[in-house]
Amino acid sequence: MMSRPYNFSAGPAMIPMAVLEQAQAELLDWRGTGMSVMEMSHRGKEFTQIAEEADADLRELLAIPTNYRVMFLQGGASSQFSMIPLNLLCGKTQADYFNTGIWSQKAIAEAKRYCSVNIVTDSTANKFTTIADPTTWLLNPDAAYVHYAANETINGLEMHTPPDVGNVPLITDMSSTILSRPIDVSRFAAIYAGAQKNIGPAGLTVVIVREDLLGQALPFTPTMFNYKVMADENSMYNTPPTYTWYLAGLVFKWLKEQGGLVAMGKQNQHKSQLLYQAIDGSDFYNNAIDHRYRSWMNIPFTLADEALEKPFLAAAKQAGLLALAGHRTVGGLRASIYNAMPEAGVCALISFMQAFEKSHG
Amino acid sequence: MMSRPYNFSAGPAMIPMAVLEQAQAELLDWRGTGMSVMEMSHRGKEFTQIAEEADADLRELLAIPTNYRVMFLQGGASSQFSMIPLNLLCGKTQADYFNTGIWSQKAIAEAKRYCSVNIVTDSTANKFTTIADPTTWLLNPDAAYVHYAANETINGLEMHTPPDVGNVPLITDMSSTILSRPIDVSRFAAIYAGAQKNIGPAGLTVVIVREDLLGQALPFTPTMFNYKVMADENSMYNTPPTYTWYLAGLVFKWLKEQGGLVAMGKQNQHKSQLLYQAIDGSDFYNNAIDHRYRSWMNIPFTLADEALEKPFLAAAKQAGLLALAGHRTVGGLRASIYNAMPEAGVCALISFMQAFEKSHG
Repeated sequence: MMSRPYNFSAGPAMIPMAVLEQAQAELLDWRGTGMSVMEMSHRGKEFTQIAEEADADLRELLAIPTNYRVMFLQGGASSQFSMIPLNLLCGKTQADYFNTGIWSQKAIAEAKRYCSVNIVTDSTANKFTTIADPTTWLLNPDAAYVHYAANETINGLEMHTPPDVGNVPLITDMSSTILSRPIDVSRFAAIYAGAQKNIGPAGLTVVIVREDLLGQALPFTPTMFNYKVMADENSMYNTPPTYTWYLAGLVFKWLKEQGGLVAMGKQNQHKSQLLYQAIDGSDFYNNAIDHRYRSWMNIPFTLADEALEKPFLAAAKQAGLLALAGHRTVGGLRASIYNAMPEAGVCALISFMQAFEKSHG
Repeated sequence: MMSRPYNFSAGPAMIPMAVLEQAQAELLDWRGTGMSVMEMSHRGKEFTQIAEEADADLRELLAIPTNYRVMFLQGGASSQFSMIPLNLLCGKTQADYFNTGIWSQKAIAEAKRYCSVNIVTDSTANKFTTIADPTTWLLNPDAAYVHYAANETINGLEMHTPPDVGNVPLITDMSSTILSRPIDVSRFAAIYAGAQKNIGPAGLTVVIVREDLLGQALPFTPTMFNYKVMADENSMYNTPPTYTWYLAGLVFKWLKEQGGLVAMGKQNQHKSQLLYQAIDGSDFYNNAIDHRYRSWMNIPFTLADEALEKPFLAAAKQAGLLALAGHRTVGGLRASIYNAMPEAGVCALISFMQAFEKSHG
């Protein structure tokens, strides 16, 4: 394995080196077929095998119950912001949304175009550093569903367990946290995730929906946005993003080799703890998020002296630590440490941070 | 260059070998960045450069006038079947559609969900072997636009020049023919194409729209289906399919190296003529399409003895000639010979056909 920098991008993000190497080795000729996977008919037996294995491996990793349909779609979470209300209002006109950050807000803005949105709790006042106590939540029993973003990538605010919303169907955007630990899929009506953090390259969206909710799309729903159509056609109503699907399948196999999601969860918790400890142990660095809601995936931090941000980023890049700038809307710094970021990368960052503090603190 | 079979798949289809080799060489590390392109932030300077170069090269290849917007989207032509009426009815309620094959029909079915569809001409009665004389066309002057599929991949029926529809905006599905020859973009209000034939891997859709038509989407249009939003954000309203966009960019550079679309057009016409001559010169093989509308890209043919199809396909595969089965809805055989299929591949197919006829005729 070649030596390469650590890439802390929030997404598209690092891909496991073993996956990249396999993709490279197979790029011109997949298993003696004389074709690259990207040249294969999506209906041929070779790609059918690739697609079915990816589906089965994902089901195994997440222990997805048989009454859930899994779809490999296009358009990212932003398309799901429309597809959720278009498909899952199920005859109702109201939906509940948590507002815990910018992705929540984007989902809310799109949902308002199709239904009446009730905000369960709003973290705007606390600058998205915490989530108010569940006793204060305003849950609407007539809501078609409750939606929340499991992890807000920009502020690094994560709900580590699904909120208790009674019998109302629970829907979650898990774009930045899916596959980072085991989850109980049966708690959810629907789970969706853009691929470009923990699944693979951008251009693929995984959607997991309880099948009894399908078939009630609003009448003007574009056919390509209709879950029932896509599920009934096994995500091959039209040509799917075949190469990205294949790469996701390689990531799923890599995750199984790592010990599955129990092992990943332990590792992700540990990696994030190391970094939070380094931040908390210093007055030079700061992370303001309520400890109960600190993200395992995206760890924003600030420098006591904001003027040192640019020198920090430049020196980090020199040290082979890439993409540590915070999101352009909030500034500061941010380390995104998804599944593919090894513990060694986190340790390298911590060492760098300590050395930088020593020389600039 | 390694020796490999010729892949006649209708799409996803062959990618130029030089492109695959460059992608393989750069897969782990793009130009010394230490990142694969699929690991790069879509807003970073590296990917911004890749995206802008692809855009500029496509504009140069197709000589796209400055008053046209180019978008790199997801969802395939099937998403465009919705996006065209959702975005381009421009306050009108009627649209004209040619029915020249199955892709026309899919576009028509989706358009009917959003507007009243008038059929300009219908090739059903002639089994999609020709297009009726323009004097018989029923053009509606109140139509918001006229839509046609430039090339029908299943029957191999192609309109080699844009139909004359007067002043009504002309829209075309060029999924299977874009970049195969020069076109006069100014003849069109909009051109769209799924990538997986002549552009690159599946999962990317190129849309070219005259900018004065933007901004009149139907009110319930999902934001991700709104051309104006996507155009204003330079196709980065959300994370685009970055790796597929990069590969498309490599294909554009390859096309420029081949001499651009004038050279490709000559080569494609020549390749198809060779194959049609071989078919027409034999009673063993048959292609029933009106010579004026024979596709340069997809050449279906039948055997006089249908029972020989399976042996033909098996022997062809043995000879390194892959994916020659006709579409499952029509049967028979089909050779798709897009830009990436070298003339040597067509000649190898013709030699095989002649030898097969000799041994089975």
